[in-house]
Amino acid sequence: MKEVFVIRRERFNAAHRLFNPSWSDDKNESVFGKCSNKNWHGHNYEVFVTVKGTVDDETGYVIDMKVLSDLIKSKITDKMDHKNLNLEVDFLKDVITSAENIVIGIYNELYDDIKKLGKQLHCVRLHETENNYVEYYG
Amino acid sequence: MKEVFVIRRERFNAAHRLFNPSWSDDKNESVFGKCSNKNWHGHNYEVFVTVKGTVDDETGYVIDMKVLSDLIKSKITDKMDHKNLNLEVDFLKDVITSAENIVIGIYNELYDDIKKLGKQLHCVRLHETENNYVEYYG
Amino acid sequence: MKEVFVIRRERFNAAHRLFNPSWSDDKNESVFGKCSNKNWHGHNYEVFVTVKGTVDDETGYVIDMKVLSDLIKSKITDKMDHKNLNLEVDFLKDVITSAENIVIGIYNELYDDIKKLGKQLHCVRLHETENNYVEYYG
Amino acid sequence: MKEVFVIRRERFNAAHRLFNPSWSDDKNESVFGKCSNKNWHGHNYEVFVTVKGTVDDETGYVIDMKVLSDLIKSKITDKMDHKNLNLEVDFLKDVITSAENIVIGIYNELYDDIKKLGKQLHCVRLHETENNYVEYYG
Amino acid sequence: MKEVFVIRRERFNAAHRLFNPSWSDDKNESVFGKCSNKNWHGHNYEVFVTVKGTVDDETGYVIDMKVLSDLIKSKITDKMDHKNLNLEVDFLKDVITSAENIVIGIYNELYDDIKKLGKQLHCVRLHETENNYVEYYG
Amino acid sequence: MKEVFVIRRERFNAAHRLFNPSWSDDKNESVFGKCSNKNWHGHNYEVFVTVKGTVDDETGYVIDMKVLSDLIKSKITDKMDHKNLNLEVDFLKDVITSAENIVIGIYNELYDDIKKLGKQLHCVRLHETENNYVEYYG
Repeated sequence: MKEVFVIRRERFNAAHRLFNPSWSDDKNESVFGKCSNKNWHGHNYEVFVTVKGTVDDETGYVIDMKVLSDLIKSKITDKMDHKNLNLEVDFLKDVITSAENIVIGIYNELYDDIKKLGKQLHCVRLHETENNYVEYYG
Repeated sequence: MKEVFVIRRERFNAAHRLFNPSWSDDKNESVFGKCSNKNWHGHNYEVFVTVKGTVDDETGYVIDMKVLSDLIKSKITDKMDHKNLNLEVDFLKDVITSAENIVIGIYNELYDDIKKLGKQLHCVRLHETENNYVEYYG
Repeated sequence: MKEVFVIRRERFNAAHRLFNPSWSDDKNESVFGKCSNKNWHGHNYEVFVTVKGTVDDETGYVIDMKVLSDLIKSKITDKMDHKNLNLEVDFLKDVITSAENIVIGIYNELYDDIKKLGKQLHCVRLHETENNYVEYYG
Repeated sequence: MKEVFVIRRERFNAAHRLFNPSWSDDKNESVFGKCSNKNWHGHNYEVFVTVKGTVDDETGYVIDMKVLSDLIKSKITDKMDHKNLNLEVDFLKDVITSAENIVIGIYNELYDDIKKLGKQLHCVRLHETENNYVEYYG
Repeated sequence: MKEVFVIRRERFNAAHRLFNPSWSDDKNESVFGKCSNKNWHGHNYEVFVTVKGTVDDETGYVIDMKVLSDLIKSKITDKMDHKNLNLEVDFLKDVITSAENIVIGIYNELYDDIKKLGKQLHCVRLHETENNYVEYYG
Repeated sequence: MKEVFVIRRERFNAAHRLFNPSWSDDKNESVFGKCSNKNWHGHNYEVFVTVKGTVDDETGYVIDMKVLSDLIKSKITDKMDHKNLNLEVDFLKDVITSAENIVIGIYNELYDDIKKLGKQLHCVRLHETENNYVEYYG
């Protein structure tokens, strides 16, 4: 049984700010600096979703990339693209919108749907800038 | 007299929305679509500044890249990075923050300062996403 | 009147071979080498379309990027993506499918439609590999 | 004993189609869509080969990158570059030329030769487009 | 307890040569080829540092990227940027400046400082060219 | 007569320093900073050579990319790759090895040879880092 990892990239452009509502504005400013700007800033995010599975002999696929892409779009990028991550994304409602929390949120959103397809979500990677990215394996 | 073009890249991450205040919300929505989201979205912008000039025999430089970089930072990216382009950038106050208007704004901000250095601003290029960019030559 | 250049990238993956039907197989082989392989090879092509125009005061646009993208898709990439450039692309029927001829073909396909939009096609750039690309200005 | 992973990138441009010969044309079309075009399409493939090993004190190398590059060229890219993957690659003869099967084929082709060099092939990664890639660890 | 991997990229431009002082010039030349040029050559190195840790509920961070970036700058890139790796980098004094030995050196330099921050250094990746890179996990 | 621009990328990794021999060490240091380090530093340079010409009806080529690549290798990158630009490159003997002077040197080296091929060298672009590059049009 040959196990292969299949990776799909999708993108979304969004606004956010780092902000802990239980802190004063001064503390938010001192911890998060310019990332806490109350007027928001934004990023071109890139998300890489890794699915692990055995190769189907009939198709040569672990998973049809179009199926994976459509799933990421409907569950993730349609909800996040051209949106405000703090105000408009249901699965980020109660967390600080750090890259770490976003990547966990995306992983959790996708996990069950990929399992229903008979495959395993292995990893989600999220790039915030060309210098900063994060990975989550569940 | 050998004329060389020198190009410096700088980056800034910002929020914005496309919005014409003389239009109804419906018209903004119908023309600009998701780019008009009232809760903002954002981008990792890249700006490429081209300076044209003759090469100084003593330094081998058209312009010291550190001088050019410092100028772009003080006049452009310090004002735009982690900011809201609609609300917080003085030279974009009265325009729609399309890539076209941003690139014109950046060009105009830099023109005189580069002229004072005895050089000529040739072009500004602004990348909004990996698929969309604009250029302005004055 | 401020003139700005707006650039949109699209992509297509296609098969082709370099082949001059008026030559013998040996001559094709000796001139084009492995690029003439009768069983075809292929590329991930990237096309960059530059439109020149003045900025509309009401929209901040030279051209709506979605309109430009849709035009490139309907006229170019829908016809070329996952296709054989020698056999299946109407506007390349009678030419050798070199990058030079492909870029001219794309330019000619787009020129009138962009003119009808009141804008001017300035340039088409076509990347065949990370080391080879071509530009055509009409 | 310090174990380091060494990664070498090579590239090849090839034609292929997804096609299951035990299926009707209609079923191939319905499962594989445009990827099954009988006139072929193609890609600029990138392959990343990871070798794991301890660092030789005398050379500072896990493996000489030139040796690794030459091996990948002779066993892989010379056979695949400017070729039709379905028709001309011996180690892909009986499989569907999906990225999954190609990456397994490349891994198997390289495994013994790298073992003979006293090193271990750890992983092969294959990029088909900027949005799709696969990894195989044996 | 959710464990996330956080990756920061930094860059440095440096000169080096591959040279084993216990060998003759001829042997250095025959083993290392042009990489052993006594007049040096150089690279734009990219270093990716991966820190593993649980996400802090109050900040949403595994580690503040600015803290990580400052640490890499003070311990690594300030010592290596625009330097000669063979002559001027204390932690590379007694080793051949292969990518393998450089990546081990960087890892060892960072390990304790990251531990003091309560986090774990997971991996360092070093890119020497677009075709060659190495990874070290301790 | 359709005129197309054909661009070929080549790469070389080299050491250099910025140094004006008619100045004191202190002045070199104060003008060039760390770029003047007497122990050298280095870069992964990328050079893009643009040739302008009409498309040959029989081949579809402005110029055979292999011919252009071989010319750039023999005249430029073989002389510069894994070399010290200040000490070992004949056509840079008497100039400061700034990107500006290197790009002029490369242009002048290639001009006549491309003319002998019946084509015109249009531009040379040289990338020193991901943030800095220069262009020369003669």
